[in-house]
Amino acid sequence: MNVNGKHYRTIWMENDKVIMINQNLLPFQFELHEAKNYQASIEAIKTMIVRGAGAIGVAAAYAMAQAFIEAKGDIKFAENAKKEIEASRPTARNLFYATERVFLAGCKSAVKAVSEAQQIADEDAEAGKLIGIHGNALIKRNSKILTHCNAGWLAFSDYGSALSPIYQAHRESKNVFVYVDETRPRSQGARLTAWELHNENVPHTIIPDNAAAYLASKGKIDIMITGADRIAANGDAANKIGTFEKAIIAKTFGIPFYIAAPLSTFDIHCKSGDDIIIEERSEDEVLYQTGLNENNELTRILVCSPGSSAYNPAFDVTPASYITGFITERGIFPAEKSIIKNMVL
Amino acid sequence: MNVNGKHYRTIWMENDKVIMINQNLLPFQFELHEAKNYQASIEAIKTMIVRGAGAIGVAAAYAMAQAFIEAKGDIKFAENAKKEIEASRPTARNLFYATERVFLAGCKSAVKAVSEAQQIADEDAEAGKLIGIHGNALIKRNSKILTHCNAGWLAFSDYGSALSPIYQAHRESKNVFVYVDETRPRSQGARLTAWELHNENVPHTIIPDNAAAYLASKGKIDIMITGADRIAANGDAANKIGTFEKAIIAKTFGIPFYIAAPLSTFDIHCKSGDDIIIEERSEDEVLYQTGLNENNELTRILVCSPGSSAYNPAFDVTPASYITGFITERGIFPAEKSIIKNMVL
Repeated sequence: MNVNGKHYRTIWMENDKVIMINQNLLPFQFELHEAKNYQASIEAIKTMIVRGAGAIGVAAAYAMAQAFIEAKGDIKFAENAKKEIEASRPTARNLFYATERVFLAGCKSAVKAVSEAQQIADEDAEAGKLIGIHGNALIKRNSKILTHCNAGWLAFSDYGSALSPIYQAHRESKNVFVYVDETRPRSQGARLTAWELHNENVPHTIIPDNAAAYLASKGKIDIMITGADRIAANGDAANKIGTFEKAIIAKTFGIPFYIAAPLSTFDIHCKSGDDIIIEERSEDEVLYQTGLNENNELTRILVCSPGSSAYNPAFDVTPASYITGFITERGIFPAEKSIIKNMVL
Repeated sequence: MNVNGKHYRTIWMENDKVIMINQNLLPFQFELHEAKNYQASIEAIKTMIVRGAGAIGVAAAYAMAQAFIEAKGDIKFAENAKKEIEASRPTARNLFYATERVFLAGCKSAVKAVSEAQQIADEDAEAGKLIGIHGNALIKRNSKILTHCNAGWLAFSDYGSALSPIYQAHRESKNVFVYVDETRPRSQGARLTAWELHNENVPHTIIPDNAAAYLASKGKIDIMITGADRIAANGDAANKIGTFEKAIIAKTFGIPFYIAAPLSTFDIHCKSGDDIIIEERSEDEVLYQTGLNENNELTRILVCSPGSSAYNPAFDVTPASYITGFITERGIFPAEKSIIKNMVL
């Protein structure tokens, strides 16, 4: 997608370096971050310089390729690197999908590892494009759409999952309007989704996460679309904390609730949501907020009562029964075990 | 309740001045704010220096009394002041309850207005104390309680509503634990409720508003208790935005959902939630956050994408069918029209 008129992917490889848009600085600063080796790429995943299901997968693929370049034929080195990469963020399925594919290719040669990683990045972008085309069919003219967190092009190598159908509908002048959940604690909605939609001129407004039930009860939401970090064989889907709350609200008010994700997000070896590890992140993400002060300087402030702790689970699991359907690069299908198996295999 | 070992009410009157804890500076600074006349008291209500259903009511009572002092017998002046006070925050029932009572008294004399306002403050504190005693009966040993926003002693003249039973249970060493919803956009949970609980040594942790469904699905919440700003004759209850979301989650997981409020919050002239005006506040409350920077200076920062707007409804309405019961100074009763009428009249 475009930033200031120039096309960018979220993350790419130049020789042995991985270059990525620094998402911790968005929406306030647009800066590229360079990871010189696989350890630096892991650090970028951990600190969420790169984040979002697809983009984490691509970053992991590139990190694995970097490890093979550094390994100089030492498979043990690459094996250890694989384990380190996989320990960086436990919830995202795409990460494991990527390391496995690049590891198999890398066992032949480092060049093959790099080209496999590149292919994963390209497939991720292509999947996003197709998700947009398929998902657009669900969006009626004048629709009001709620989305949670950021499953836009920043969360993938390009296009995105949940936002891709919205971009497509907007390009077709369907007069869509997007309610953007702020998505505390890291505010990916207010910061990244709003930034993306603003850059693409899609009409939208940011809402506190608390406002969804109110809007739904007033008939102001026609459809909800979110992404996912890992989808189990039975259709249970892990995504950013709060997604389950929105799905419960959607069900309460009879609003269609779709999850948009490439097939690489499905984990058919994971039986159900109970088997998905939920990452718990630092309480500081709740206690502190970063933003621009009156001098336009990035500033970190304490926003909670100084004596108190915070609890920060990063994801929740939405049971299949709450999901109207999945929007994938192969089309839209319901959250049913047998259908998922057919589509993914 | 106590601050640094000294007993304070949230708001009180000294001669013709109204003194209140400046809740916009909490939890970072404990400072008293002085409103010299009724206009200054209105400004304090509007800017939320004083906030919370009961405390708004008491502030409105004192403002009305100040107006009578300033009126020097000019009833027209007092009438106009009443309208101005009532326009300051449209949702809270206690505000109208208070202005009506003090206006009637003030028509006799300014002295009577002041003493009526004082009585409203005393009744508010007494109601909070009794709510604590009644509500405590609902709290089992080792309970994990979720609360939203701040309905503690800061929201009343003393004791509070939703937090009062928790304080009582804690005093009886029931080993309770409180999940405090952050309560974006103004974060009254993370700032005021957490500050209160910390000062009273009640074990608690702050959670993002998004985390309630996750915790509920893991069986980690035994009961939810919130306050209310206005309760209609049929039991529909307006409270801080997000309350309805928590009530929906409670119902989904079979968790008891109680609303604690003094009878002054019930508005039997209001048929149902549809008749409750929902205040919409400035988008800046969503777009900006205030907190302490690294030099311990109060700093305001932009936390959202600069090009985007925000939508900020301050309240939502939880339908009676989602409310397990009301905890009041007269005891606990279900959200049923005929029972409410009996209790309130």
